[in-house]
Parts: sequence; structure tokens; C-alpha cells
Amino acid sequence: MDQHTRASFDEQLRELQQELLRMGGVVEQMLFMCVKALVERDVALADETINMDDIVDGYNLDIETHCLRLLALQQPMARDLRTIAAVLKIITDVERMGDYAVDIAKTAKILAEKPLFKPLVDIPRMAEIVQRMLRESLQAFVNHDTALLEQIVTEDDAVDNYNRALTDELVGYMEKNPSVVYQAMRLILIVRYLERIADHITNVCERVYYMETGTLKELH
Amino acid sequence: MDQHTRASFDEQLRELQQELLRMGGVVEQMLFMCVKALVERDVALADETINMDDIVDGYNLDIETHCLRLLALQQPMARDLRTIAAVLKIITDVERMGDYAVDIAKTAKILAEKPLFKPLVDIPRMAEIVQRMLRESLQAFVNHDTALLEQIVTEDDAVDNYNRALTDELVGYMEKNPSVVYQAMRLILIVRYLERIADHITNVCERVYYMETGTLKELH
Repeated sequence: MDQHTRASFDEQLRELQQELLRMGGVVEQMLFMCVKALVERDVALADETINMDDIVDGYNLDIETHCLRLLALQQPMARDLRTIAAVLKIITDVERMGDYAVDIAKTAKILAEKPLFKPLVDIPRMAEIVQRMLRESLQAFVNHDTALLEQIVTEDDAVDNYNRALTDELVGYMEKNPSVVYQAMRLILIVRYLERIADHITNVCERVYYMETGTLKELH
Repeated sequence: MDQHTRASFDEQLRELQQELLRMGGVVEQMLFMCVKALVERDVALADETINMDDIVDGYNLDIETHCLRLLALQQPMARDLRTIAAVLKIITDVERMGDYAVDIAKTAKILAEKPLFKPLVDIPRMAEIVQRMLRESLQAFVNHDTALLEQIVTEDDAVDNYNRALTDELVGYMEKNPSVVYQAMRLILIVRYLERIADHITNVCERVYYMETGTLKELH
């Protein structure tokens, strides 16, 4: 690339990163909303979350088109190519996280029909960690911050612990009281969705690591 | 592209497709094995399934590297570019399907500890449909067969129906008999994993449709 092409390419990469951050911001917001909808049995908020999925899908398509145009016009090599491949992979993960937020919102609507058999304390905490992990993973991408990746992986351990502990706890409730089976089973699914979102964030981290180092490494 | 480059590019695309078919074949095999392991309480077979995940991860990396090399060396445009982007996306979905087969195998190991409270009939049937869908989706990709995509989407409806019916049935068992909660809850997760695999196959179908037509359309 000559100097002018380089500058223009860098400019477009920056734009791409900004788009990705905005996409991630929408999903982070959806995560916050769907869990709030669950806790407060707020069907309208759940519907709002579900509707936001179109925004995420729009970003997904726009960013992909943007990537393909960059690939076609600029024919980047080595690290630049790896960066664009990373964006293509990361948007798939982020889009899927949005789908899980929709799943949680749909489950929140079902559960809103009657009062929950117990107040929800740990699920919002688990969701908070996941939101933070998502934000940090995209920061790590934009700021080339591989040290941050290690921290996110530690947070993922906390999410796994919540997953195990909450599932055991909810199974215990179901065994003791058949009348809570329906609700507890759906809460287990929500816990599972949150854990999956964290898995996708780990994918993003591995991808950032690869982009920065050229090495694929399992971070979890 | 000149004629020679064209021929070489087409040859490499064909190789890429063959690699993808082999990767899909491994995952299809894993799906078969993990459900057989579940039904027959065969821990060794479950472990074998889990170990096969490394093969899938290897394909994932090889194919991606192959795609990036093609992008860098051949600088393809338009449809060729869309094809390579499709492969990059499809391998992510197929790799994730392999992860779900591993999840099923791990759950099969847990459930193998004691006899199941009921014989499994519908889960193997559901898994069979999913295996067929996976095979067909990759055939549709390789053979540019958009008509086949419609058929796969119909099969996805059957998977969704199994998901709903089996979940309801298992919740019913749990409500009636607390002693089956632990097993039934894990069977619900397996049903959910199969449904997710079918979702990923739908992603593959949408991607094939996009590659063939240049239009993104929700097929489900």
C-alpha cells in the first residue's frame, strides 16, 4: 500500500471498529434490559429488547458489507487481513449474544405471567459480569489490550461458577417442590443462556489474541 | 483474473469445499455418536465423541487459514469474495455444532451413572433429522442448490416441534415425580442443544442463499 492508501485504510479500519463498538453497545443494553424485564416482570421492556434485535442484525450486515468492500478494494495483507477476518468473526459472536438476550426476554415474558417462587438475586449479578465482559472484550479489541483478555477469562470463571451453583440450587428447588418445576426449569435455561453469552465473549477474546499475536490459543 | 489464475482459483475453491464437507462429516458423525452414547449409556463412546472435537477445531483453523491465503493471494471480487466469506461464516457455525455434540456427550456421561427413568425414543429421532439437515445444508452449498434450502427449513419446523413437545413432556414428568427432576432437566438441555444445532444449520442455509443470490433473507 502507498502512504495515501494506508491512511485511507487505517481510517476505514477505525470506522469499522466504531461500528463494532456501537453494535456491542446495543447488545450490552439488550442484556441489561432483558434481565431487568425478568426481575421486574416487565413485559413491555421484554418486547423492547426483542425488537432491538433488528438493530443488531442491521449492524451485522452493514459491518460485514463494509469488511467485504475493504477486502475487495484494498486487498490487505497479513495483519490487516487478520484484523478484518477478526471483525467478520466477532460480529457473528456478538450477533449471537443478541439472540440469547432475545431468548432471555422471551423467557422473561413467559415467567411474567405469575409471581416468581423466589426473588432473583444471583441472575442479575451473573448478567452484570457478562455485560462487563462484553464491554471489556471490545475494548481489548480496539485498544490492542491483550492484558485485558486475561482479566476477562478470570471473570468467565465466575460466570461458570454461577452457572453450576444456580443450576444445582434450582434443581434442588424442583426436587423439593413440584409446583416450582415450570419456573425453575426456565430459570435454568436463562442461566445457561448467560453462560453461553460468556462463551461467545471468550471466542471474541481468543480472536483478539489471534489478531494481535498471530497465534490461536484457548483462553479458557 | 486471467484464465490461468481463474482455473487455479476454482481448483482451490473446490479444495476448500471438500475440506468443509469433511469437517461437516466429522460433526455429523459426532452427532450420531453422542446420541448413541446417551441412549446406550456408553461412556467410552461419549469420550470418543468429546475427543473428536480437536479434529473439528483443526479443520476450523485449516480452512480459515486457507480462506485468508486465498483472499490475500487471489484478491477475489464479487461472488468469489462472497463464497469465501460464506466459508468463513459456515465453519464458525459447524464448529459450534461440534461444541454442542460435545455438550451432549458430556451430559450423556452424567446420565450414564444410573438407568434412565424412561427409554429414549424421540431424542434419537430428533437427532436424526438434525444430522440429515446438516448433511443437506452442506450439499446445498457445494451443489448451489437453493431448492434444497427450502426443504431444510421445513425440517427445522419438525425440530422446533420436537423441542416444544419434549420440553412440555419432560416438565410434566418433573412435576409428577421429583425423583426424575435431575435426569429430566438434563434431557431438556439435550433437546435444547439439538434445537440450537438446527438453528446453526439454518444460519448455514441463509448463508448459502446469500452466496447464491446476493440477498440476505431469513429462512425461518
